[in-house]
Amino acid sequence: MIPRYSRPEMVAIWSPETKFRIWFEIEAHACDAQAALGVIPKANAEAVWRAKDVEFDVARIDEIEAVTKHDVIAFLTHLAEHVGADEARFVHQGMTSSDVLDTTLNIQLVRASDILLAGMDRVLAALKARALEHKDTVRIGRSHGIHAEPTTMGLTFARFYAEMARGRKRLEAAREEIRTGAISGAVGTFANIDPQVEAYVCDKLGLEPETISTQVIPRDRHAMFFATLGVIASSIENIAIEIRHMQRTEVLEAEEYFSPGQKGSSAMPHKRNPVLTENLTGLARLVRMSVIPALENVALWHERDISHSSVERAIGPDTTITLDFALNRLAGVVEKLVIYPETMLKNMNKFKGLVMSQRVLLALTQAGVSREDSYRLVQRNAMKVWETGADFKTELLADPEVTAALSPAEIEEKFDLGYHTKHVDTIFARVFGS
Amino acid sequence: MIPRYSRPEMVAIWSPETKFRIWFEIEAHACDAQAALGVIPKANAEAVWRAKDVEFDVARIDEIEAVTKHDVIAFLTHLAEHVGADEARFVHQGMTSSDVLDTTLNIQLVRASDILLAGMDRVLAALKARALEHKDTVRIGRSHGIHAEPTTMGLTFARFYAEMARGRKRLEAAREEIRTGAISGAVGTFANIDPQVEAYVCDKLGLEPETISTQVIPRDRHAMFFATLGVIASSIENIAIEIRHMQRTEVLEAEEYFSPGQKGSSAMPHKRNPVLTENLTGLARLVRMSVIPALENVALWHERDISHSSVERAIGPDTTITLDFALNRLAGVVEKLVIYPETMLKNMNKFKGLVMSQRVLLALTQAGVSREDSYRLVQRNAMKVWETGADFKTELLADPEVTAALSPAEIEEKFDLGYHTKHVDTIFARVFGS
Amino acid sequence: MIPRYSRPEMVAIWSPETKFRIWFEIEAHACDAQAALGVIPKANAEAVWRAKDVEFDVARIDEIEAVTKHDVIAFLTHLAEHVGADEARFVHQGMTSSDVLDTTLNIQLVRASDILLAGMDRVLAALKARALEHKDTVRIGRSHGIHAEPTTMGLTFARFYAEMARGRKRLEAAREEIRTGAISGAVGTFANIDPQVEAYVCDKLGLEPETISTQVIPRDRHAMFFATLGVIASSIENIAIEIRHMQRTEVLEAEEYFSPGQKGSSAMPHKRNPVLTENLTGLARLVRMSVIPALENVALWHERDISHSSVERAIGPDTTITLDFALNRLAGVVEKLVIYPETMLKNMNKFKGLVMSQRVLLALTQAGVSREDSYRLVQRNAMKVWETGADFKTELLADPEVTAALSPAEIEEKFDLGYHTKHVDTIFARVFGS
Amino acid sequence: MIPRYSRPEMVAIWSPETKFRIWFEIEAHACDAQAALGVIPKANAEAVWRAKDVEFDVARIDEIEAVTKHDVIAFLTHLAEHVGADEARFVHQGMTSSDVLDTTLNIQLVRASDILLAGMDRVLAALKARALEHKDTVRIGRSHGIHAEPTTMGLTFARFYAEMARGRKRLEAAREEIRTGAISGAVGTFANIDPQVEAYVCDKLGLEPETISTQVIPRDRHAMFFATLGVIASSIENIAIEIRHMQRTEVLEAEEYFSPGQKGSSAMPHKRNPVLTENLTGLARLVRMSVIPALENVALWHERDISHSSVERAIGPDTTITLDFALNRLAGVVEKLVIYPETMLKNMNKFKGLVMSQRVLLALTQAGVSREDSYRLVQRNAMKVWETGADFKTELLADPEVTAALSPAEIEEKFDLGYHTKHVDTIFARVFGS
Repeated sequence: MIPRYSRPEMVAIWSPETKFRIWFEIEAHACDAQAALGVIPKANAEAVWRAKDVEFDVARIDEIEAVTKHDVIAFLTHLAEHVGADEARFVHQGMTSSDVLDTTLNIQLVRASDILLAGMDRVLAALKARALEHKDTVRIGRSHGIHAEPTTMGLTFARFYAEMARGRKRLEAAREEIRTGAISGAVGTFANIDPQVEAYVCDKLGLEPETISTQVIPRDRHAMFFATLGVIASSIENIAIEIRHMQRTEVLEAEEYFSPGQKGSSAMPHKRNPVLTENLTGLARLVRMSVIPALENVALWHERDISHSSVERAIGPDTTITLDFALNRLAGVVEKLVIYPETMLKNMNKFKGLVMSQRVLLALTQAGVSREDSYRLVQRNAMKVWETGADFKTELLADPEVTAALSPAEIEEKFDLGYHTKHVDTIFARVFGS
Repeated sequence: MIPRYSRPEMVAIWSPETKFRIWFEIEAHACDAQAALGVIPKANAEAVWRAKDVEFDVARIDEIEAVTKHDVIAFLTHLAEHVGADEARFVHQGMTSSDVLDTTLNIQLVRASDILLAGMDRVLAALKARALEHKDTVRIGRSHGIHAEPTTMGLTFARFYAEMARGRKRLEAAREEIRTGAISGAVGTFANIDPQVEAYVCDKLGLEPETISTQVIPRDRHAMFFATLGVIASSIENIAIEIRHMQRTEVLEAEEYFSPGQKGSSAMPHKRNPVLTENLTGLARLVRMSVIPALENVALWHERDISHSSVERAIGPDTTITLDFALNRLAGVVEKLVIYPETMLKNMNKFKGLVMSQRVLLALTQAGVSREDSYRLVQRNAMKVWETGADFKTELLADPEVTAALSPAEIEEKFDLGYHTKHVDTIFARVFGS
Repeated sequence: MIPRYSRPEMVAIWSPETKFRIWFEIEAHACDAQAALGVIPKANAEAVWRAKDVEFDVARIDEIEAVTKHDVIAFLTHLAEHVGADEARFVHQGMTSSDVLDTTLNIQLVRASDILLAGMDRVLAALKARALEHKDTVRIGRSHGIHAEPTTMGLTFARFYAEMARGRKRLEAAREEIRTGAISGAVGTFANIDPQVEAYVCDKLGLEPETISTQVIPRDRHAMFFATLGVIASSIENIAIEIRHMQRTEVLEAEEYFSPGQKGSSAMPHKRNPVLTENLTGLARLVRMSVIPALENVALWHERDISHSSVERAIGPDTTITLDFALNRLAGVVEKLVIYPETMLKNMNKFKGLVMSQRVLLALTQAGVSREDSYRLVQRNAMKVWETGADFKTELLADPEVTAALSPAEIEEKFDLGYHTKHVDTIFARVFGS
Repeated sequence: MIPRYSRPEMVAIWSPETKFRIWFEIEAHACDAQAALGVIPKANAEAVWRAKDVEFDVARIDEIEAVTKHDVIAFLTHLAEHVGADEARFVHQGMTSSDVLDTTLNIQLVRASDILLAGMDRVLAALKARALEHKDTVRIGRSHGIHAEPTTMGLTFARFYAEMARGRKRLEAAREEIRTGAISGAVGTFANIDPQVEAYVCDKLGLEPETISTQVIPRDRHAMFFATLGVIASSIENIAIEIRHMQRTEVLEAEEYFSPGQKGSSAMPHKRNPVLTENLTGLARLVRMSVIPALENVALWHERDISHSSVERAIGPDTTITLDFALNRLAGVVEKLVIYPETMLKNMNKFKGLVMSQRVLLALTQAGVSREDSYRLVQRNAMKVWETGADFKTELLADPEVTAALSPAEIEEKFDLGYHTKHVDTIFARVFGS
């Protein structure tokens, strides 16, 4: 976790305080369930809740762990200091450390998902607003980095919206994947604890009981979770790269917002760097790098080995914190992106009218000119534009062979931008609903 | 694609013949739609279907491509050879190569998914059958590779079943992700073709129209698809590793089926290698390796760059073919896996009764013996087992301090395997339905 | 292996014919060594060489393998068909299949390295030639995609040269890593064969005997090999991205060579796509994707498991073939890259003179103007350029506050490009030697 | 960075204090060089060294950065507070932030390499000691997890030694790769600073001047560095997996050291988990996960984009800290590994004598028995061992058909372990020198 790339809300999910709070809730609810089953006395179950509002003392628990060499035991010992040693003696009965640890991890991932979903909503809202704002802002569409045909800035935002909306749906599914808990004992047989305890605790904590666990919750769930975050990160990169391209000096169709106070901005007005989107490009790599280890974590030996644990200690917090930060940074960038419609038009006309050459070619053919001749006519006028900076339409209108086939009005029509934008509404309706 | 790791059915999806067949269908349906819109003559649209049953001549198309340097044009030229140059002249009108190529790729991935789903069904059926067969076959559960508590072989199969069932659901979702088509032109604006053509063609081919495309269908869909295959591959690895462990000489709780005719089997009966599951371990790595490039493919420049294309030419066929082969190999392994219940019992009792030491410890405590004393009692009897190979239960029954706290019947009860298997039915009901 | 991304020379290394040829040489040399040790009769060793010029019949070997289910045995059987069953009966004595297979793989990788090194040499030669050609071709240096300070096109080529030269050195080291052979038996103890056989065979085949093998040659060597290819691929991507940027319509400082005959070029002169470098970007991803599975292949169980094998069957050929193709494609692109020095100057002056603002700011400060005033002076002139398209130098020369601090000559000097290129020779001497 | 998986020495390299210390040294040495060139006054250069023994106040620098929004400027401001504003005014002259940042990163990576090399030396020493100790400790070699032929524990350690020794050599090369510095200005042209400054500073700091830089040091160097760490991590995994296998209950040929005080050890003597090597397996995944983003960092736009920076902020510290911890954990595990030679023998004889069946088969053939008959003879005796637990040698000696071909002494000889260990000294001489 890198402080400068983290937001407090997400960091808090991974704090020791949060972890111990969740441990407490699992243990306390389990006691209730055990009491209801008659396994432990009701009074003892009730006593545990005395610690309900306690802020557990992390330093104290660490101190105990230094002796016991076992984190869950250290916590239970500390819990007993609040609840009373005698009252606390049934806490954790029949349970295995993994019951607590794995259920806790999933709760943390569910909560992390909720924050990420909120982050995606912020990105979606920004993209939608900017899409509507620039629905009709014409700019050149590019394939291979080369001018192709006109499109609109709104369509660019709209497609990022659609992509993020897919990402959101994927994240919801990933959240469901890890929304399970397990209290099933050392090898998952419920030998020492009734399945009803698991059911009760999961219900209280908003989880589903894991269909079948071993000592641990199966790691294909987590693999799917991190793989999904990796896909979302790639979509962030996709948007970031677009903005970086738009801001490069020769293109300059947009700029990341640069606050008036930011030094150097006006003495070197050309030197406003898209550092936020460059940063997002790097953060995307960081999020993605968790995918492979998460996949490697799936194949554990028999009922569990603990190789996955160190991996998750790292990628659990790091990946969710980084993605959360990235989503919110992205939202900010999109919200405030400064867009230059005039430059867009200027860029589109860099080779005056040449992007329309294909329409003209088609029109000539449809007007009965042979393919070869059509090509020759377009070519000779196009080359003038290319070589001398002439205007394509002007040249066409001045070419008698062209005007023999197409009327001036017909030629004019080929340069009508409306031809390219006529289905924008249809597409917007698909993306945002009508 | 490695021939020895491929099945013809999946290979066929990626053949040039299949590709051209799909191209034909897209073009022919598009002509129908264009004719219905009045854009091209009905007769011409109908004429295209003359090639309906033609097996396109791949060598001839390659020959043409060698001249035109363009695969789609080469195909269209060849198509015209069947349909008639004049009749064919409206084919592809208003379309871009990517309209055909991207829609085709997704059709291939959908078909590949269907074969993969069938493969998963075969794996699931095998796992279920073996789970039911060995529901009560007791074996030791292991954490960290070390004996923990008893479980059953059926539970092992059941958890693999549950994991594969999750994988199947993920694959269905991934299939939906790429079940889209696009016929939207050079930059996705439908400038030269009506969106209704896209809708018609997609409908005919079992696809949804892509919500919003550029020149290409957005690659986050494909990223999600390959990420999902990576997760499934990891689950295959998970099962493979279990079987490899079971077959190792010292464990020998199961063996891959070894046909009677396989040479060397009986002269070196100990030397039956789990080569199929080792192979599956490697194949899982191969499937997984497509995930990162698929993620890197998402961020294309502006309306498209073609960097993704070479990647997909490789991972499209290779990954689906490998996973298909792996699923079917896995199914075969599971179906025929030779299981040795007696060895399972023997292994469990390697240190006679010692796996029950924790239950005894607990029982002593519950019988009122102090924790320290309980521990001391268990320890001194456990060490005899460990060091001299004595039987734990026998030692306990002979230890007056133990029998002072626990009756012989109570001691006996601690060694009852039924204690560990009492919830197997419950778990099976969760996994397979009641 | 994708035919369109492969060159015959590299493909040949991975053909069955080549493989069997290497197998033959290993077996024949081993027989010589065994004969020299008196383990087998000299006549038998000599007899094996009868097959020296035989082209082994792959179909026939496959046929035998279909029966024996063992590739090495199938080959030996076929070899006996050429040598004589009786004469051939000592071939392979004391050896294990892996002795042949692993040594062969390394020979193939060494040969592949040699081809790759030649490919890198071609790239290096092209980069050097273009660097010298454009040593003084000034263009704007960019950080964050934004104009920074002038540099030269030659420096760009020179740094790619230096990077590729490092890559070449790495590849040499990687070649050394896998230039080993092993003939050490089932678990590497030489129980059934004298170490001298290994030494002899390795010497004949240009290999070093593996320091210590098990059944296999340790896979950290191969991991290092593929990791190195991954780094080289990333350097290819680095160059490819630069060219793609240079070719984008708004920049147009260079173009991939476009042969006069290539259709469409002149009717749409703006639409020349950098498809080769886009393709290289994708190929780099394909090469890189072998790194992780190669790393995963290192940890084999005990003296070997065969999980690595399927991985290597894929990445051995695929990765070397793809990288070889990419290197040669890159060389071609660099050799023929069309460079537009005039556009470079035009781009640099997009905001007339503004890239020099920092030098002017510094000069003012050094001339005794306070930081605040210097900034204000530069700012007000810079903003005119930015907003009205004025020329920065002209504005400065017309600003009395500026000219009060700096003489016209001093102002002129700040716009001297020689200031930026004065150390180019020094850098070239570092890169190419003086 | 996860505290529990980190050692203070490596963590210190990445502290703000260390970073600022290195920044100081770069700036101070650069001032000396500038003074020697006559660019700045000598007195000012000397004055900077007043801060030589200052512990920079990180909180104060952060405070300034909160205002200036620029880390290097914040540091320089703070430095001036120590040196005197007037005296400090020439510090950093002609330099770019990246000159300081990139050179610092490489110094940190060099220092990290030195610690890693020391860690590898510790691992190597441990492996060598254990190899010598167990040179002749016979155990069964296994391929596919199945018993093959005898080997020795010493050979296992020796091969890990050889692998780690290769890793060490690779790390030395990787250290050389990143042992460069650059002080070359905004786009690497030395426009504002003489190359001699770079040469001087690098010399003072133990670096080589980067052959050719842009704004940054080329990232292929860092890619190679992290790729190398990934290979070393995989070798750690290789050793860890071996130990995990040896410790599994059914094998139990070795155990991680378990201190007498560790609770639970003797009441459940079978339940000593190889948690350290399992942890190493996970840590290896964490180290490896930096390889791909490091490769993705190579292709920066033009003279630099800053996408690499966030990646390096994470993987710089995290990867070196994790690998350092892993190496030292591994060294401890190897040093104290408890080895059970008797169990090794017992395991080898699980199927009494059966691992020798191949030698017997060969001997029968060499004694003139036909292949078919030899096979039949071995088979019928082997099956008795397999099915009834008989002793293979005893059965052979009692089989008249066998004794007709082989004398009892000859049969005995086939079971001589010395046959398998006769070349151990030769191999050791290869690995450790004679």
